[in-house]
Amino acid sequence: MSTDTTTGLQLRSLIKKTGELELSLARVPTPDPGPDEVTVRVEASPINPSDLGLLFGAADMNTAKVSGAPANPQVTASVPEKLMRAMTGRVDDAMPVGNEGAGIVIKAGSSPAAQALLGKTVAMLGGAMYAQFRTLKAVQCLELPSGTKPSEGASCFVNPLTALSMVECMRREGHTALVHTAAASNLGQMLNRICIKDGVSLVNIVRKQEQEDLLRKLGAKYICNSSSPSFMDDLTKALIATGATIAFDAIGGGKLASQILACMEVAAVAAMKEYSRYGSTTFKQVYIYGGLDRSPTELARSYGMAWSVGGWLLTPFLQKIGMEATQKLRARVVAELKTTFASHYTKEISLAEMLQLDNIAVYSKFGTGAKYLINPSKG
Amino acid sequence: MSTDTTTGLQLRSLIKKTGELELSLARVPTPDPGPDEVTVRVEASPINPSDLGLLFGAADMNTAKVSGAPANPQVTASVPEKLMRAMTGRVDDAMPVGNEGAGIVIKAGSSPAAQALLGKTVAMLGGAMYAQFRTLKAVQCLELPSGTKPSEGASCFVNPLTALSMVECMRREGHTALVHTAAASNLGQMLNRICIKDGVSLVNIVRKQEQEDLLRKLGAKYICNSSSPSFMDDLTKALIATGATIAFDAIGGGKLASQILACMEVAAVAAMKEYSRYGSTTFKQVYIYGGLDRSPTELARSYGMAWSVGGWLLTPFLQKIGMEATQKLRARVVAELKTTFASHYTKEISLAEMLQLDNIAVYSKFGTGAKYLINPSKG
Repeated sequence: MSTDTTTGLQLRSLIKKTGELELSLARVPTPDPGPDEVTVRVEASPINPSDLGLLFGAADMNTAKVSGAPANPQVTASVPEKLMRAMTGRVDDAMPVGNEGAGIVIKAGSSPAAQALLGKTVAMLGGAMYAQFRTLKAVQCLELPSGTKPSEGASCFVNPLTALSMVECMRREGHTALVHTAAASNLGQMLNRICIKDGVSLVNIVRKQEQEDLLRKLGAKYICNSSSPSFMDDLTKALIATGATIAFDAIGGGKLASQILACMEVAAVAAMKEYSRYGSTTFKQVYIYGGLDRSPTELARSYGMAWSVGGWLLTPFLQKIGMEATQKLRARVVAELKTTFASHYTKEISLAEMLQLDNIAVYSKFGTGAKYLINPSKG
Repeated sequence: MSTDTTTGLQLRSLIKKTGELELSLARVPTPDPGPDEVTVRVEASPINPSDLGLLFGAADMNTAKVSGAPANPQVTASVPEKLMRAMTGRVDDAMPVGNEGAGIVIKAGSSPAAQALLGKTVAMLGGAMYAQFRTLKAVQCLELPSGTKPSEGASCFVNPLTALSMVECMRREGHTALVHTAAASNLGQMLNRICIKDGVSLVNIVRKQEQEDLLRKLGAKYICNSSSPSFMDDLTKALIATGATIAFDAIGGGKLASQILACMEVAAVAAMKEYSRYGSTTFKQVYIYGGLDRSPTELARSYGMAWSVGGWLLTPFLQKIGMEATQKLRARVVAELKTTFASHYTKEISLAEMLQLDNIAVYSKFGTGAKYLINPSKG
């Protein structure tokens, strides 16, 4: 571990006007903390699906090449021309990456809040975590209980708060059970644990037998496999049994959101006494929070008029529920960090190893069950 | 005009288990009004797009045949087999049709509210209006100012309240301007008059030059033609000029809803200072209130995460805003019935004429500019 803290490596993602993505490690000066700030030596930062959009942009990673010395590699890949328009806002701007992480506070500003964190292990949210050092406001840090390793606190925010917020959103919008797609993901497993603990019915949608088996082993009660010929019937039965009228969908593209609404409607109509050509009055909501399938969402609209499909993001949701409610969610994450909110990683890599093609090939793919943790202190 | 009021003709729409639609005129006894009820001789009832779903169900009206005596015709047509499942709730149930209408109160129950309406011209909402007599609660009637003809009050509810509710919904959900599709419709013209009167910016989307010309003549400021090669640019400019972030879409199918969201996002991003890979935080809403295009809605999701597409219906909206707010809207309709909310009809037909194929060919098509009024007192 380097003892020089005045500069450190930082991963940069650059999309050039010429249509080329360039990933590199820059050596950048570590900013001194202001009065309300601390400097953290980052020792753990997960690669979440939500990081990959900024990391790779619209580049086709099948075209990726690596060059440079092993300790200072550079990855280049091409961005398809028709996707460059969507990149306009970030062209020629080398961007730091990494939504969340954890590490040790090595410097602190003069304020009591900052001083109180000196030497502590903290979890952080705020971007630019794929770096050896990160100077940020003390309030952006969550102090972890002593005895917590940075690797245990690396994923304190994105997945735990997202999973908790889904249940919170369900309750606030008047639903009593929920549906989740890509449900065997790290996030999905967390949501499954929350729902079991809180006694909330969860309908898990997966697309592979092994994902079904995994969730079954983790105690999930309702699991529907979208690859099965009986999927629509299975889902309808699960919706009748649970009364779920809200879904959180990580897939986005294709017909899945529409199928969920259609099955919710069949479940709702089954409980109706009178025919209405407008369908049921039961309000059905699908929130799309990911885009594992980038193709268009196709809505058949065969489910009456009481439905909505919309984008859903953690940060605006937390802003909507306010500081106090958010604090409650954060406190629960810390209290259950090693149980409900434990994350499991298949591999720990350095920043330089993050730029190796064989690693990229694994962590750039979704749904493989692999989850990588970066340890920038390894270089 | 028949002087026998004990029975009257009523239009019935029946979908048989065998996959056949049958439209006929039944002679039904006129129910005597209860204490809180009145019996109305229906003299005017419009054919709204929202009536056609119940009238024709999923039948293919290209297969329509007529039989029976001219005074008592029967229309039959086939329902495509794959659409029969959606008809399950109404199979073998002969349903009366007609959402709204107006007429003269010929009998009244004993309550003061009912008695007060005797002999008055009233507008009604409540279904089964394609009939010579309609017995209903006095509270379902809206007394029209003396000197108002039934034909002038026939369309008091569906289009006027829908147009007013769109503006009301826009305000309540925090938007300041709106977009409307199929904007040259009777409803669209009404919305245009409301917006001009209230000083609300309205972006009208049409698909034909003559619709553009019509709205221009009616004082519309922002008109975008979706058939024009410059449509996306024109729409974006209109959205930047108006700041509209909510749209009411009568089309439903295809890419239009998605195009509106995409242009709203370009308008929102144009006002942003910093790049965000999640797009703008400006919340963009499209409400689908009709289905002129029955094909699936295709959402490209190229507009960040702050968006929603959902079904929208008048009745649930009015329930949501409550009785008092609804009363205000109704009062405005009556006050401006001959100006803002005037409807224009291309033809007045009897119930029997409604079952003639040449008339069906006209009123079953949308967007032709033709609007028919039924006068059941003509037989």
